[in-house]
Amino acid sequence: MRNWILPENIADLLPPEARRVETLRRASLDLIASFGYELVQPPLIEYVDSLLTRQDNALDLKTFKLTDQLSGRQLGLRADITPQVARIDAHLLNRQGVARLCYAGAVVHTQPDGVMAAREPLQLGAEIYGYAGVAADVEIVELMRECLKLADIGHVHLDIGHIGLFLALADAAGLSGDTREAVFSAIQQKDVPTLSGLVADLPTELRTGLIALPSLYGDQSVLERAAAALPKLGGIVTALAQLEQLTEALAARGIQPNFDLAELRSGYYHTGLVFAAYAEGWANAVARGGRYDHVGEQFGRSRHATGFSLDLKELAWRLPAAPARPAILAPNVFDARLADTIRALRLAGETVVVRLGEIVDVEELHADRELLLSEGAWRVQALS
Amino acid sequence: MRNWILPENIADLLPPEARRVETLRRASLDLIASFGYELVQPPLIEYVDSLLTRQDNALDLKTFKLTDQLSGRQLGLRADITPQVARIDAHLLNRQGVARLCYAGAVVHTQPDGVMAAREPLQLGAEIYGYAGVAADVEIVELMRECLKLADIGHVHLDIGHIGLFLALADAAGLSGDTREAVFSAIQQKDVPTLSGLVADLPTELRTGLIALPSLYGDQSVLERAAAALPKLGGIVTALAQLEQLTEALAARGIQPNFDLAELRSGYYHTGLVFAAYAEGWANAVARGGRYDHVGEQFGRSRHATGFSLDLKELAWRLPAAPARPAILAPNVFDARLADTIRALRLAGETVVVRLGEIVDVEELHADRELLLSEGAWRVQALS
Repeated sequence: MRNWILPENIADLLPPEARRVETLRRASLDLIASFGYELVQPPLIEYVDSLLTRQDNALDLKTFKLTDQLSGRQLGLRADITPQVARIDAHLLNRQGVARLCYAGAVVHTQPDGVMAAREPLQLGAEIYGYAGVAADVEIVELMRECLKLADIGHVHLDIGHIGLFLALADAAGLSGDTREAVFSAIQQKDVPTLSGLVADLPTELRTGLIALPSLYGDQSVLERAAAALPKLGGIVTALAQLEQLTEALAARGIQPNFDLAELRSGYYHTGLVFAAYAEGWANAVARGGRYDHVGEQFGRSRHATGFSLDLKELAWRLPAAPARPAILAPNVFDARLADTIRALRLAGETVVVRLGEIVDVEELHADRELLLSEGAWRVQALS
Repeated sequence: MRNWILPENIADLLPPEARRVETLRRASLDLIASFGYELVQPPLIEYVDSLLTRQDNALDLKTFKLTDQLSGRQLGLRADITPQVARIDAHLLNRQGVARLCYAGAVVHTQPDGVMAAREPLQLGAEIYGYAGVAADVEIVELMRECLKLADIGHVHLDIGHIGLFLALADAAGLSGDTREAVFSAIQQKDVPTLSGLVADLPTELRTGLIALPSLYGDQSVLERAAAALPKLGGIVTALAQLEQLTEALAARGIQPNFDLAELRSGYYHTGLVFAAYAEGWANAVARGGRYDHVGEQFGRSRHATGFSLDLKELAWRLPAAPARPAILAPNVFDARLADTIRALRLAGETVVVRLGEIVDVEELHADRELLLSEGAWRVQALS
């Protein structure tokens, strides 16, 4: 048994990658803070009932379970952070007005999302609680795009959708349990033959509406086609109006999204507008988000909510390798003046490495200068 | 069932604390980097065999176990990071010379170390691999003290000890299994009556040596007392010489440590010099460290190793609450000039919060200024 082997889809970050992730983490959190979002840091483990929003089977399956030795109750190792932030907004902060919260932390998945997907993403996210209007979604999309710019992954395009369309149709059709799940899944996979079979017995306008969803994909003309193809249910009228508003606000900012009204996968708990960012060369979305109104209800305070999240490790992977900061070597002797010189150099932003042992490979130390005693003073000189 | 309740000894970090922890985390990592340490980030979960160094029962008991759905093998949720860093040094980096590595990450404990202890510390640490000399320990102690200065916890005093004294006596006495554990535990607890009973049948000099350990506590005179009280076994001579060297190096830096030669608890895997930092008003050590030579052996490369670690959350708790950065309010309208103004302010380090909804409580936003349109330009003005 070679015990240096890591589990599948689990990886170390070695110095070059760890540095990239740390740099992107800091820059992203600073950017998000400049929009007025406050940092929170919920724990890695909680009672599993708190970690799972209602009826999110998929999140349940992704969550490792543990037994709490103190209470005997079941704990979960978080697979997502949003339900925790909702708990904080609902129960701990109790803000009267809008709350803007952000976080960056590890989540762990029992199974990877795909062959190449990591089971331990470093999830970064920002969320707005307590505002129903589309302006909150616009801000979240803007912030998501600004964060992606930091990761230097090239042109990002945006897909938008609205879970409310499916919810309105499914509710009107009285779909529940396994049938509802099956219809959801068929739409998500754009599997029209299966979908047609599942909805064959529904009233015409609900049936044609559900079957239309997978074809409602493309540019802004999708919104007109949707208005024509879908019945005028209250939820649908609202959803289409919100899509219009978001589209207009994005257009004013020079952003032309794609529309995918069958995209239901953005999260486990989404209820309304959803969006995902894609970049050239990436199979999966590089960031996702949307509305999850009332996610805090289970914690005693139902508020409107919208947010986005992304995996910092995945993004940092593509960043150019930042070279290590060139260091100054110092001799391994104790001398008060040398100690003062070293301290001053470090305070000034330099890396000073004390020589320990024979230096077999100077490259390993990333050093290009050294401290030498010259005419009674310690001076930085090019490495001899 | 109130599902906003967290498990015992598990806590959220709300904005003021999360900000303090983040600030201390960054400052500490930057300081450690200025000494030439390279950041690594091992995963939260690994095969449990890799997470546990040999024969560390205590670490085993602290580690949550999970089943890997991909391999069927047992995973652990890390309770410590040092064995992971040892694995990285031994197997992945393969540096020819000295390797200096650092990390900051969450660890999780099945049981808290005490009634008030957190089960999810944020462990920060720095480690030197590949150097046997005491100069490496001196650097680690210096770095530990510099990190503690950042946390602003007042005067820190240092306890030093050496596990090699116990190991040499226990090996010479042929202690093993439960007896060895019991003797270890009695010394650790300074329980001389129990200890005397356990070692009653040993040869005189080993018996008196083991019984002497709990009394070898105090100022520098401890070293002379130890030399007189302990037999001249090879391991003891070496240990005392290393203690002398460390003491001299610290004295040159103006540091007067305490000595506690019965202190065996610094880690699960320590083998030589150990040290702990204490501060006024803190029941437990605020940072700990020491030698754990050959910890990498199980990963195929046995190297000398020394390092320290501390809990950033615990330390940040004592930092003065950093006030939130005062923000500038901006109206929720889209206007290209306004957007440019907001962007420029954010780039210049300001927080600009867009008004969403009615502002019920301006305190919640930490805002002291606002952007107003005045004579055709957007200007920052005191909040009206």
